[in-house]
Amino acid sequence: MAIIVQKFGGTSIADAEKIRRAAQRTTNAVKNGFQVVVVASARGKQTDQLIADAMELDPNPSVREMDQLLSTGEIQTVSLFAMALQAMGYDAISFTGGQIRLITDSVHTKARILSIDADRIHKELDKGKIVLVAGFQGIDEHENITTLGRGGSDTTAVAIAAAVGARQCEIYTDVDGIYTTDPRIFKKAAKMKHISYDEMLELASLGAGVMHTRAVEFGKKYDVKIHVRSSSRQTQGTIITHEVPQMENVVVTGATVQKNMAKISLVGVDNKPGNAARVFAHLAQAKVVVNDIMQTEISREKANLSFTVGSADLPAANEAVGQIKDSLNCQSLFIRDDIAEVSVVGVGMRTHYGVADKMFTALAKAQINIDSITTSEIRISCVVDKSQADKALQAVSVAFELDKPPETRNE
Amino acid sequence: MAIIVQKFGGTSIADAEKIRRAAQRTTNAVKNGFQVVVVASARGKQTDQLIADAMELDPNPSVREMDQLLSTGEIQTVSLFAMALQAMGYDAISFTGGQIRLITDSVHTKARILSIDADRIHKELDKGKIVLVAGFQGIDEHENITTLGRGGSDTTAVAIAAAVGARQCEIYTDVDGIYTTDPRIFKKAAKMKHISYDEMLELASLGAGVMHTRAVEFGKKYDVKIHVRSSSRQTQGTIITHEVPQMENVVVTGATVQKNMAKISLVGVDNKPGNAARVFAHLAQAKVVVNDIMQTEISREKANLSFTVGSADLPAANEAVGQIKDSLNCQSLFIRDDIAEVSVVGVGMRTHYGVADKMFTALAKAQINIDSITTSEIRISCVVDKSQADKALQAVSVAFELDKPPETRNE
Repeated sequence: MAIIVQKFGGTSIADAEKIRRAAQRTTNAVKNGFQVVVVASARGKQTDQLIADAMELDPNPSVREMDQLLSTGEIQTVSLFAMALQAMGYDAISFTGGQIRLITDSVHTKARILSIDADRIHKELDKGKIVLVAGFQGIDEHENITTLGRGGSDTTAVAIAAAVGARQCEIYTDVDGIYTTDPRIFKKAAKMKHISYDEMLELASLGAGVMHTRAVEFGKKYDVKIHVRSSSRQTQGTIITHEVPQMENVVVTGATVQKNMAKISLVGVDNKPGNAARVFAHLAQAKVVVNDIMQTEISREKANLSFTVGSADLPAANEAVGQIKDSLNCQSLFIRDDIAEVSVVGVGMRTHYGVADKMFTALAKAQINIDSITTSEIRISCVVDKSQADKALQAVSVAFELDKPPETRNE
Repeated sequence: MAIIVQKFGGTSIADAEKIRRAAQRTTNAVKNGFQVVVVASARGKQTDQLIADAMELDPNPSVREMDQLLSTGEIQTVSLFAMALQAMGYDAISFTGGQIRLITDSVHTKARILSIDADRIHKELDKGKIVLVAGFQGIDEHENITTLGRGGSDTTAVAIAAAVGARQCEIYTDVDGIYTTDPRIFKKAAKMKHISYDEMLELASLGAGVMHTRAVEFGKKYDVKIHVRSSSRQTQGTIITHEVPQMENVVVTGATVQKNMAKISLVGVDNKPGNAARVFAHLAQAKVVVNDIMQTEISREKANLSFTVGSADLPAANEAVGQIKDSLNCQSLFIRDDIAEVSVVGVGMRTHYGVADKMFTALAKAQINIDSITTSEIRISCVVDKSQADKALQAVSVAFELDKPPETRNE
């Protein structure tokens, strides 16, 4: 019998009525002949409430105790979900992370999954039960409770799907799939039927925050089809999967914009081995997350080194750079806190020419100046004025026909 | 180093302020040179809220899932309690029942403790940590989470005290100790310094609901001194312990009254072997809890059989008896729903005469009619009119000098 994993987020199961509605999804899958494993997050604002309770007692709580505390939210959800299923006449059993031996490393609050006891799950499925597993949590080798960090329940779901050999992992969420670009900015954005893991990773890290990056990475590594779909509507969503041949015919799958960015440029630093490393080691120490890095030589002795960060990290980044700029013989600092980054993503770029050209032309026609450019194998990003961010995304979306789902485009 | 176990009930730790106050008790014990294990219940009304959440989804929820759900309340408390201690500069670690291998049988919602991994606790205590254990819960041999039923956290605390060889188990509660009788009825009731397990068991089962019976039984079995004391005041409470020689000098330790009682009498049933057994097997099937049973022959062939139940159980008891009374050739049923039971308790009764006489005389002088009488080795109970219940308790309390603590009386 084929297995399906269904994951429900906090808003999809915030109260009894919503839990019952989610449980209907599960029983429908059972009626369709599947064995079902359900992974659930904590209900609604439960986790926020527990964090507030903790902060009242200790503003800097021990991470072990924090994990012990927060893990209870998901346990509550799955036992309640099991009761909802039982009230509908279905046999169900809920498990904590520890009960299915979801073993992680000991890095509390952002633990990584090491192994899962798939036999424990299979045994209950084979008895005809629906199995529910508390998301977001595991135990380390000493039986301490650990949590997986932001988006952890997505990761739990995909990891379990991999462990039990599920046909698909369904992620029920408040959007109905992955769009070619942000529909709030480009109204005609189209929902995609399929997207590759790599494209999703680029889009996710660029701010299309539907699925957490780690869950997608897990899916890629263990070849788990992930179906992102609406918890309130019955429509098909978007399936994240390995690339299929026709995907390569589509040069640009989607586009994103990241606002609230800032850029720091160190102008005229000594062009010596190790200088860039020193800068970024120093920034890492200051816990600044750096997005893109651009370096160009300007003479045999001097180079310009630029990087982008989230606006919130700018003060810390500025301070960190200020501390070491003299030791690099940096001639001047140039800071912009009014920038945005527009990106196009597509696995087809690997085999197609002219994408960059088409993007730059579209931006030029729209009178948008490009501050700087970075690329990866399947992505091109342009830094532009924040005031022109939406206009830039719209121009790019029109140029690459993002009003059509990728599979219907002919490029 | 001597170990103390401290148990805090739900009202003693209902919010951050109260948790901090409880944590002060713990740090005081540490300052006094003790290693401390804290057992805590769920905060305030958390358990009631979880039960309400469950009922909304399934009015008759699976007991396994109910245990899984309810166990989270205590886990939250102990991790928050640990944070409070850490914020005060103390090293602390919290455990679920499963983490200290508190193994129970598989009778969900009223599991019995089979074993505890004391080494796990000693290991952390010996590192200088305060150890916190979630009360009320354990796991069975298949790692299912179980709960111990009403008063379960008391039982956890006493069981851990036994397992780790603690010097004392302190039960922090909203009364400041055990009184000779109910101070709401007999204002001069005196707090006792000591009481024996057996006396406490008789008093507890008679409605003085300070400590749960199972916890006292556990204390008796494993010889754990239990100190019942106030969570808000710094006074000494009452120590429940094995009887010490001077206890036998005191004939009556305390007195109780149980109101909301009813009595059913089967008048003139066939006096045949097995008839009483049939009645009470039938009542047990109807889930009626029977308090006292009185049987007397009235002729060679006939007997009267009476028993008392809580008022709430009267309809079920009445129905159950109605179904079998004809097969017993019962001549008539006599039901009283307006009775109360006044009892005096004391281990000294075993070696002293005249207690019953003194009690009956006190009641007679107060113009109180005795409906029926039952006794155990250390208890005498009289059924009286409910309207005379308080007066009866007062009369008995005066007769046995319950305005003085047992240790100061000379009988």
